[in-house]
Amino acid sequence: MKSLGVGLIGTGYMGKCHALAWNAVKTVFGDVARPRLVHLAEANEELATLRASEFGFEKATADWRALIADPEVDVVSVTTPNQFHPEMAIAALQAGKHVWCEKPMAPSYGDAERMLDAASISGRVGILGYNYIQNPVMRHIKTLIGEGAIGEINHVRVEMDEDFMADPDAFFYWKSELAAGYGALDDFAVHPLSLLWFLFGHVEAVITDMVKPYAERPLQQGGRREVENHDLASVLMRLHGGISAVLMANRSAWGRKGRIALQIFGSKGAISYDQERMNEFELYQAEGRGTEQGFRKILAAPAHRPYGRFIPAPGHGLGFNDLKIIECRELIGAIAGEAASVVTFVDGLRIEKTVHAMAQSFHERRWVEIAS
Amino acid sequence: MKSLGVGLIGTGYMGKCHALAWNAVKTVFGDVARPRLVHLAEANEELATLRASEFGFEKATADWRALIADPEVDVVSVTTPNQFHPEMAIAALQAGKHVWCEKPMAPSYGDAERMLDAASISGRVGILGYNYIQNPVMRHIKTLIGEGAIGEINHVRVEMDEDFMADPDAFFYWKSELAAGYGALDDFAVHPLSLLWFLFGHVEAVITDMVKPYAERPLQQGGRREVENHDLASVLMRLHGGISAVLMANRSAWGRKGRIALQIFGSKGAISYDQERMNEFELYQAEGRGTEQGFRKILAAPAHRPYGRFIPAPGHGLGFNDLKIIECRELIGAIAGEAASVVTFVDGLRIEKTVHAMAQSFHERRWVEIAS
Amino acid sequence: MKSLGVGLIGTGYMGKCHALAWNAVKTVFGDVARPRLVHLAEANEELATLRASEFGFEKATADWRALIADPEVDVVSVTTPNQFHPEMAIAALQAGKHVWCEKPMAPSYGDAERMLDAASISGRVGILGYNYIQNPVMRHIKTLIGEGAIGEINHVRVEMDEDFMADPDAFFYWKSELAAGYGALDDFAVHPLSLLWFLFGHVEAVITDMVKPYAERPLQQGGRREVENHDLASVLMRLHGGISAVLMANRSAWGRKGRIALQIFGSKGAISYDQERMNEFELYQAEGRGTEQGFRKILAAPAHRPYGRFIPAPGHGLGFNDLKIIECRELIGAIAGEAASVVTFVDGLRIEKTVHAMAQSFHERRWVEIAS
Amino acid sequence: MKSLGVGLIGTGYMGKCHALAWNAVKTVFGDVARPRLVHLAEANEELATLRASEFGFEKATADWRALIADPEVDVVSVTTPNQFHPEMAIAALQAGKHVWCEKPMAPSYGDAERMLDAASISGRVGILGYNYIQNPVMRHIKTLIGEGAIGEINHVRVEMDEDFMADPDAFFYWKSELAAGYGALDDFAVHPLSLLWFLFGHVEAVITDMVKPYAERPLQQGGRREVENHDLASVLMRLHGGISAVLMANRSAWGRKGRIALQIFGSKGAISYDQERMNEFELYQAEGRGTEQGFRKILAAPAHRPYGRFIPAPGHGLGFNDLKIIECRELIGAIAGEAASVVTFVDGLRIEKTVHAMAQSFHERRWVEIAS
Repeated sequence: MKSLGVGLIGTGYMGKCHALAWNAVKTVFGDVARPRLVHLAEANEELATLRASEFGFEKATADWRALIADPEVDVVSVTTPNQFHPEMAIAALQAGKHVWCEKPMAPSYGDAERMLDAASISGRVGILGYNYIQNPVMRHIKTLIGEGAIGEINHVRVEMDEDFMADPDAFFYWKSELAAGYGALDDFAVHPLSLLWFLFGHVEAVITDMVKPYAERPLQQGGRREVENHDLASVLMRLHGGISAVLMANRSAWGRKGRIALQIFGSKGAISYDQERMNEFELYQAEGRGTEQGFRKILAAPAHRPYGRFIPAPGHGLGFNDLKIIECRELIGAIAGEAASVVTFVDGLRIEKTVHAMAQSFHERRWVEIAS
Repeated sequence: MKSLGVGLIGTGYMGKCHALAWNAVKTVFGDVARPRLVHLAEANEELATLRASEFGFEKATADWRALIADPEVDVVSVTTPNQFHPEMAIAALQAGKHVWCEKPMAPSYGDAERMLDAASISGRVGILGYNYIQNPVMRHIKTLIGEGAIGEINHVRVEMDEDFMADPDAFFYWKSELAAGYGALDDFAVHPLSLLWFLFGHVEAVITDMVKPYAERPLQQGGRREVENHDLASVLMRLHGGISAVLMANRSAWGRKGRIALQIFGSKGAISYDQERMNEFELYQAEGRGTEQGFRKILAAPAHRPYGRFIPAPGHGLGFNDLKIIECRELIGAIAGEAASVVTFVDGLRIEKTVHAMAQSFHERRWVEIAS
Repeated sequence: MKSLGVGLIGTGYMGKCHALAWNAVKTVFGDVARPRLVHLAEANEELATLRASEFGFEKATADWRALIADPEVDVVSVTTPNQFHPEMAIAALQAGKHVWCEKPMAPSYGDAERMLDAASISGRVGILGYNYIQNPVMRHIKTLIGEGAIGEINHVRVEMDEDFMADPDAFFYWKSELAAGYGALDDFAVHPLSLLWFLFGHVEAVITDMVKPYAERPLQQGGRREVENHDLASVLMRLHGGISAVLMANRSAWGRKGRIALQIFGSKGAISYDQERMNEFELYQAEGRGTEQGFRKILAAPAHRPYGRFIPAPGHGLGFNDLKIIECRELIGAIAGEAASVVTFVDGLRIEKTVHAMAQSFHERRWVEIAS
Repeated sequence: MKSLGVGLIGTGYMGKCHALAWNAVKTVFGDVARPRLVHLAEANEELATLRASEFGFEKATADWRALIADPEVDVVSVTTPNQFHPEMAIAALQAGKHVWCEKPMAPSYGDAERMLDAASISGRVGILGYNYIQNPVMRHIKTLIGEGAIGEINHVRVEMDEDFMADPDAFFYWKSELAAGYGALDDFAVHPLSLLWFLFGHVEAVITDMVKPYAERPLQQGGRREVENHDLASVLMRLHGGISAVLMANRSAWGRKGRIALQIFGSKGAISYDQERMNEFELYQAEGRGTEQGFRKILAAPAHRPYGRFIPAPGHGLGFNDLKIIECRELIGAIAGEAASVVTFVDGLRIEKTVHAMAQSFHERRWVEIAS
């Protein structure tokens, strides 16, 4: 494998996470060429230079187009706020770069479609940063389901809850504007949707309820402003094959910090998982004597690939940032033409379509089918 | 308080549970007259006599009407299969007896209405065996909500799951017949509905999805038979005041044995509870330093009334049967004209109405409002 | 089986618990004669009469010797403070009564020996109220160990912790007097010792450390008084067959309410249990694929005998008081000459011997062997 | 800060972990100079070259002395098996390099002393890889204790359990040789000792019991060989100020994968922690209404420093390897003369002294005081 030249646009939460992944992927996996950290773009020159030094990039710029034009750059990490994704990703693809774009694709479905078109035309790899599917525990859950360990699946529940919008006295900010999207649905529910897609394929029909826990919020300058989108959404779903599912997303859920709780029921057993304890999952198999049946708490271990690339001992635990390193390895594989476990722009667009269908089903108070 | 003469119809799961409660209520609470266990009715004479001896009843009969006619009987426990509730409860009320009837009221809404009418006309007490509301932990949760400990409630989730219908190879039996009802909804979801009612008041609107995990089941005599109702239901709800709620019920949920998992989110905190660990609950309050905020696991204790009537030490644990003893104490209070924490026939009918609305919303694939 | 006439001395915490058990045992188990609640003794006449009415006893007395002399009494529950056990139990045995005495036997080893002697001479049944061994879950753990489910046992840890002495500002009371015993060891550690005996047989050697978390305590009348015994003890042990064990007991353990945490390690697996969640235990078996090995959380169920005598459904939960009902059934069986799972005075004396050896090993700062 | 030139000796479990830390420390923390990965040593040339390429080191060698002689190397990571630590660490210090040596220091106390002497004479920084103290959660526990959040500490329990020696049918290998040390004590118990030191200071007195779960093990070539050290140790301890403690270490504990369970009891509350869930801890404070007291499960968050350097959102989770990155940052600080939270050779030697005292107390069957 040839060494990839990396460009990074954005250096916030996810930007740093990408930088850590690009730095570590070779050391962790060994079986790829060490990426060259070529070019970093940030809003202003000074910050760009500082971050380039911190993250180990050779060049810094306040002009992301210069980064995209850089012939040494082979692949571009796009980690800016969602509304910038389409322009940047499309420009990068048109310049012949591969693109690793944070989720979701874009606030509007049309823009997301254009991103996919650009990827298709360019022939380059476009993937999305849905890192939770990369957890070795989640991969093993997929393997177990595929092996029939819990039989035929008939029901799934997934909850995604955090509390960063839970305080009613917190000031109004952009996340509560309509321009920022539906609220919990696109800010949030896309993550559990990526897991549903990863494990079961696409969603076929939905009906959604949404509420605003707080109708308005205080303004920093005094007075109050109406909240324009919904922090809380609950969705009944049918998945591929008629599996019934319930998705619940709440960004005002006091006490939940990074909860993505998954329950999967099948004809021979059940599986449960919670992202807040990302190094374990529970498995129930209706086997053996009834007196000893129970949910087994299984700790992540080297045999759950690729955990062992990080740590040779079981039960020692990966972290959130490690998932991005695995995603990075998958991306490199995809670029090299290997089969890779990633959310491509094709799959990502379907996730966006589902989000819009969920919103529509709320506004029209009816079930909405999602054409494939 | 005068000593009540007790009649018990049915001696299965719930019959025995009632018998234990009638035996223990005086010893536990002290502040009531010891009930006299007067008359017990079972399907045949022999079994009736055996059970009367075991449960400590003076007389035994195979004719439940004789029990109801017994002038020594003041109150009748009705613990037979659901289809017998209306006839027995109405006859008992008409004979001037108080009635303690197991949930749900009746398979048909009309019958349930007739039960309420009979209670109203008789002026006797009619209550339903929704014992989960009697848990001292659940009562304390209600107190906390009332005190505003977690602020204004905006979202509730409740899951009720067991696995007695989870095995696809188990023979078809009456629970899968349409005559037995909707399936998970009435067999099962009535329990979480009683909790929602207890904590938040009545449900105002619903939309339901239901599935049959197994389309058919084997027959003992060979061949297979189509399953006629749904083991699995998921419901989006609006409660009083616009609170959004999700109710999930699954009697085919492998690994779940007595799960009633409740999550309540408010503007200042959250509460969670699981009936499988009925002696504890979790409370999150957004107070104090952020570095020490977290869900507090609180063990049942004497200060959670009436736990202390059973055990003077905290953390030692009540059992499922103890809830029925508390319910029995409430019933005795209700008969004596005290304020009591029970599900009356009035409230029970509203729960039945909700169940039928949930089923309707599934068949018509739309939201259904429930008139008050 | 003939109906037993029951006398109850003491009506506090354990007295009420015994009364509930005597009231319920027939209804729960069916297969015994209903005991007659004949005579109750309390410190004064008035209270005795009140409690007799509450608990369902026919006669009341302030003179426990009158109770023992009552020819209608066949078996005596002794539930008074520990220092009264020897006199009452011995008198009852000498009067030809069976004795159900709360643990521990007596503050002094000599008195405990005299109790055993009295039982031996009388030919009557003498058992001790070590109710934790009666938990269906604990019985099943014993069965699993006996079946070799976790191989040969090599290590055991047991922790018994509560927090009723944890507050340093609580007034000095009799539990801190030397006359009340060693502190955590006899007040407390006897319970885990009963479990160790039940599961593994007797303790062979010990070395103990003890501390006083608080050297003195405030007096209600002002001033402070030195604490005379130890709220906290830790013991290294060797059990039968050289199994290493650690016993930790702490009655000043903030946050623990009824913890008895047991961990058992064997050559093929491990078991863990915590009394605060008495309706479940965890089992690890080193079997099958490594990728799915884990501790299985197993909920109490009818197949764990005699859970099913109380509730026919799994996962619904017994309570602390239910254990006493099971103990009562075992006692009735023992009196009828059945094999019974109880702590007899013989076994109880060995537990006392172990307690005194633990104290000795602390004072002499050395390992102490316990002769069999 | 000047950029440090790094040498790495050994590329196994801990070698890779060091490499990842050296790669990531600048990107994570920003406030240090990016280390230069200069020289890597492995047992043979080929492997050294491969690992240097994977880990990002410029030079590779099979001769660790060449690495130490390299003038571009400022600091040496020593990650080889324990018996090589003294020679390598001493040589590096004598060559004027700083040393980051994996724990424990050395199999013999004399060698460990010589390592400390070499560090003292050199004036260079020598620290040990006790990474568990670096967990932001553990640091916060220390802060809480220091603030008196749970009052004056009176009791501590710590368990360290894994199961890599649990299978009795696994072949004999070097870990069971006497030459490899005492077994659980030095292989294992040094980690909890580092935590006890970090939180409470040094251990003052000990008495230990040890057992061999399996007296002998099969040999790969056939036949069996006697096990020469002890997989299992239990220790009663007195810490600074008379705090009683119990340390339990078991490398044959089926089902435990990376358990380091800590329980700390004080006069106002309690704290518990388990390394298998390293992103949370539990805090009980005896404050407020009794009806709401309970153990609070607190998830790691940015406010628990330096978690926020890795992830700006709470509850998302660090991994085991992240602790080494923090340790690396502390080491760089120590080299720059900053106050640093590390286990120096001075503290490390005291830990070794405690290990030897624990072994002595077992062999002499008595309490052993540890001179300060």
